[in-house]
Amino acid sequence: MRCAYLGPEGTFSEEAMRLFAPDGEPVPCVDVPSALDMVRMGEVDHAVVPIENSVEGGVNATLDTLAHGSPLMIVGEVVVPITFALVARPGTRIEDVRTVGTHPHAWAQCRRWMHDNLPDAVHVPSPSTATGPVALASGEATYDAGLCSKISAERYDVEILAEDIADNWNAVTRFVVVSTPKRLPPPTGADKTTLMVHLAHNEAGGLLAMLEQFAVRGVNLSRIESRPIGDALGRYGFSIDAEGHIAEERMQEVVMGLHRACPLVRFMGSYPTADGRRARLDPGTSDADFIAARTWVRSLLQS
Amino acid sequence: MRCAYLGPEGTFSEEAMRLFAPDGEPVPCVDVPSALDMVRMGEVDHAVVPIENSVEGGVNATLDTLAHGSPLMIVGEVVVPITFALVARPGTRIEDVRTVGTHPHAWAQCRRWMHDNLPDAVHVPSPSTATGPVALASGEATYDAGLCSKISAERYDVEILAEDIADNWNAVTRFVVVSTPKRLPPPTGADKTTLMVHLAHNEAGGLLAMLEQFAVRGVNLSRIESRPIGDALGRYGFSIDAEGHIAEERMQEVVMGLHRACPLVRFMGSYPTADGRRARLDPGTSDADFIAARTWVRSLLQS
Amino acid sequence: MRCAYLGPEGTFSEEAMRLFAPDGEPVPCVDVPSALDMVRMGEVDHAVVPIENSVEGGVNATLDTLAHGSPLMIVGEVVVPITFALVARPGTRIEDVRTVGTHPHAWAQCRRWMHDNLPDAVHVPSPSTATGPVALASGEATYDAGLCSKISAERYDVEILAEDIADNWNAVTRFVVVSTPKRLPPPTGADKTTLMVHLAHNEAGGLLAMLEQFAVRGVNLSRIESRPIGDALGRYGFSIDAEGHIAEERMQEVVMGLHRACPLVRFMGSYPTADGRRARLDPGTSDADFIAARTWVRSLLQS
Amino acid sequence: MRCAYLGPEGTFSEEAMRLFAPDGEPVPCVDVPSALDMVRMGEVDHAVVPIENSVEGGVNATLDTLAHGSPLMIVGEVVVPITFALVARPGTRIEDVRTVGTHPHAWAQCRRWMHDNLPDAVHVPSPSTATGPVALASGEATYDAGLCSKISAERYDVEILAEDIADNWNAVTRFVVVSTPKRLPPPTGADKTTLMVHLAHNEAGGLLAMLEQFAVRGVNLSRIESRPIGDALGRYGFSIDAEGHIAEERMQEVVMGLHRACPLVRFMGSYPTADGRRARLDPGTSDADFIAARTWVRSLLQS
Repeated sequence: MRCAYLGPEGTFSEEAMRLFAPDGEPVPCVDVPSALDMVRMGEVDHAVVPIENSVEGGVNATLDTLAHGSPLMIVGEVVVPITFALVARPGTRIEDVRTVGTHPHAWAQCRRWMHDNLPDAVHVPSPSTATGPVALASGEATYDAGLCSKISAERYDVEILAEDIADNWNAVTRFVVVSTPKRLPPPTGADKTTLMVHLAHNEAGGLLAMLEQFAVRGVNLSRIESRPIGDALGRYGFSIDAEGHIAEERMQEVVMGLHRACPLVRFMGSYPTADGRRARLDPGTSDADFIAARTWVRSLLQS
Repeated sequence: MRCAYLGPEGTFSEEAMRLFAPDGEPVPCVDVPSALDMVRMGEVDHAVVPIENSVEGGVNATLDTLAHGSPLMIVGEVVVPITFALVARPGTRIEDVRTVGTHPHAWAQCRRWMHDNLPDAVHVPSPSTATGPVALASGEATYDAGLCSKISAERYDVEILAEDIADNWNAVTRFVVVSTPKRLPPPTGADKTTLMVHLAHNEAGGLLAMLEQFAVRGVNLSRIESRPIGDALGRYGFSIDAEGHIAEERMQEVVMGLHRACPLVRFMGSYPTADGRRARLDPGTSDADFIAARTWVRSLLQS
Repeated sequence: MRCAYLGPEGTFSEEAMRLFAPDGEPVPCVDVPSALDMVRMGEVDHAVVPIENSVEGGVNATLDTLAHGSPLMIVGEVVVPITFALVARPGTRIEDVRTVGTHPHAWAQCRRWMHDNLPDAVHVPSPSTATGPVALASGEATYDAGLCSKISAERYDVEILAEDIADNWNAVTRFVVVSTPKRLPPPTGADKTTLMVHLAHNEAGGLLAMLEQFAVRGVNLSRIESRPIGDALGRYGFSIDAEGHIAEERMQEVVMGLHRACPLVRFMGSYPTADGRRARLDPGTSDADFIAARTWVRSLLQS
Repeated sequence: MRCAYLGPEGTFSEEAMRLFAPDGEPVPCVDVPSALDMVRMGEVDHAVVPIENSVEGGVNATLDTLAHGSPLMIVGEVVVPITFALVARPGTRIEDVRTVGTHPHAWAQCRRWMHDNLPDAVHVPSPSTATGPVALASGEATYDAGLCSKISAERYDVEILAEDIADNWNAVTRFVVVSTPKRLPPPTGADKTTLMVHLAHNEAGGLLAMLEQFAVRGVNLSRIESRPIGDALGRYGFSIDAEGHIAEERMQEVVMGLHRACPLVRFMGSYPTADGRRARLDPGTSDADFIAARTWVRSLLQS
């Protein structure tokens, strides 16, 4: 199984890809559209791409590339905690580190740790967190140490001076596993459905009406993000993760309601949640409740 | 066809019954429960009973008798304008009328007309509007004139001194035609569905949530009335007329939603509206819209 | 203090009146409009009239008389459990009772008890529950026993054969104490506000929008009843009891919202609840929360 | 008046800054946080920064920098159509252009025009749209032509080969004018209020409840965008533009309602809209309606 990810090697994307497919063949790509296009072209079986970060928010390139072009389907998700390792050439002492090479985002997420532990260290920007260990191991680095992922730290001939570094211990990035729309994963009871929905009109009432399609069937949302439709200011689509699987009755009624009421609904997939937490079912929202209600209404029609 | 109604002969109920079944055999009953029990017992084919008056409100005896006991079904409705005729023995001049016999409700609905036209006339209470013409024709009346329905005025040997009498020109009474739940009338495009619904909980939110079951599927209400459930203060059921027929998709989804969310839903019938006004369909709420949405969702499941 | 009530003496209305004003001068009236008119005319200080019964529902005469004519104000409420006493001439044994005189409503509420305890007893209709003990004591009764209120049973020379008789043990009637709009009772923390509200339009959305005025400020309803406005079928006003006092900020914002959005809002009074149960306050709905929010917004305006 | 903007000179940001303050002293900054920090430090009077683009969506750096740190206030907005000019050294013919230097975003927004008009031209990435004309004029350019803003095209010794270039003719960027919270601009009748709001809880109901705070007072939204709060996946704040001014009664009641119900509300300013379109006022939502309602409620309290 070939599996595209956002390269280069040693990034958190590779870590996510390996968590999903430990034995898969990794195919690093230069950006998210390239990874998703490889799926569309049939050049890989899956792509693993970031969709949201708990600090930075939604990944627009992923949301927008999934929302346009030939259909793709999300078949799984992986959540990766974002903590860093400080690595250096073997023999380096932490108190000797004066310069640190890493991607600016990584530096931003560790600024307070640096201030507390290496107040005099200076940042040397590099194009990826994975660049540091490579350059340090090969001797080409222009800095004393690097801040990188654990996976990357362990792969090269560098020494880990500190690990589990993060200013915000809850920082995670969520990745989705994308394939062509071949086969829907079966429901597990702990599933998520991803949708893109445009509103019929852009007033407060339009968003309210859309949310009521979910609320009235007892379906909860775990993510909602606005994206511009692109034709004018103030015109939005919403990228949504809802708790439940399209094979479940309540989700089907929601999706049918959206289909009737909204100018565009794009189904992006139903797949098991990374944390295995089962959706809470309000009274009257199980499949059995829907089936009982339908049976009753049919009996009325036959009278 | 035998048809029960709220007697005695000559009331507005008889008028409603004859509008529904001009050739039926009228069976007058002493009260609404008796008329509906005759349907349940199979002693008549239909009962025509008042369900609401535009001035007095819902008819509790009808609402409560329909809501309890073995199932009945509303198969039609008749709306009767409530205006009165002033009748007297032949030869009487209107300026000679000093006393008027009629039911107190009828007197109340003509008080202003009487004040303007016969300011000195005195009311003599009688048990029904139909009593007056009978007594006047037979010579047993203890009053000079009667206030009664047109149907009653024309049936006996009395003279009509004035007709179309009413303080409120819009006053109407709505009657429903009730049978056992044999055969649902087919949808006409201008139909009404009557339901009794209990709320899951009695807070403002409970009623809001129930109304949203209708709103989210674009089904409008033409009547909603609270009735106590009877077990404690503050516990209500709601008697509801909704625009549309249970054979229509949007109404089925509403009724299934109520069935899942509410402790009790009683289906009372779907039947043509008296005025033939077709239900307004919001965009996305026709049967075709529901079928298209279901077809689309099924296609997702097969991927 | 003179206090009107729905007579004759010995009814549950007198019981309610005495619970409210043990030392008041009771003034029995023939019907509810008469009692309320005595308040309007200044002939009594208060009237105590039934507003709802847990079995029969709202008392239309009270709701409609309060809603029209010169303003009146509800200043208190009394809830009376509805149970009956079986009374007879001294010396009568219960097994000898063959006929029972009482009002038909009372008979209806004790039918099962009668069936179980005196299966052969026959009902003799009387105009009021209070008629029985009077007639039995004076020897004019045409029946063996009466079903009446406790207050009535104890007042006359009759013997109580059984008491606390009721088919539905939860049956209660709620009475309101009405005066002219002189002085609003101060808030106690356990108060109720009564309103009559007409809707701007009669679609499902109209009632939804009205209920949201309450929900968005966290004000709960303990009673809502529809009453026809009277000008056409399908046009309703709603009689509402809401938890809280008009002197409280959240209730003021609700009532102002209704005033802006609805064609008619009639304030009927804020008064202590009979059960002393304090209103539940959702987070952010106390007076302190409103004052803090207003202070903050004013600070924004001064920037 | 000193006015910071997102440099370098010749960008659309400079164009927005000059539209706002034609005679102001422009102060170019390297990024949005730097521009806003200059306002906080008092080193400039205003900053003009992009807040949303009709194609790309919200500008996270602006939304997040406004939402954190010492308070800033939006006092105006400027909307700039995004079209480009193709410029080259004087004497160059359009058919001789083989290479085009510009920022990748600009290239993306003109790709179709290029395909149609210069299908063989190759993109040479440059750090800003403003780099091209400078380099072309000075002779240091490594490409034949540049794609830049009109303002930039006119400033240097280059020739405009084509102008008004855009794949999407409706593409605009909206900039906000930011100052310290000194003085609120007075209401004009065509105003906008910008808020950042966190939700009390993250279920569908939480967002619904927040939107109802607006809907129940008839305040419409022209923009709503989710931003992660940063402490966990699925925790969002919402950046909102609402129609109206904080000096207006309906907006004050909304903002007070949010303050009571939500854990965080940040007021970002009320200011005239760029297009001068007056807010639509639903019936019952004018200042006069609020004042009449308040006067009425006060009269109830004095009874």
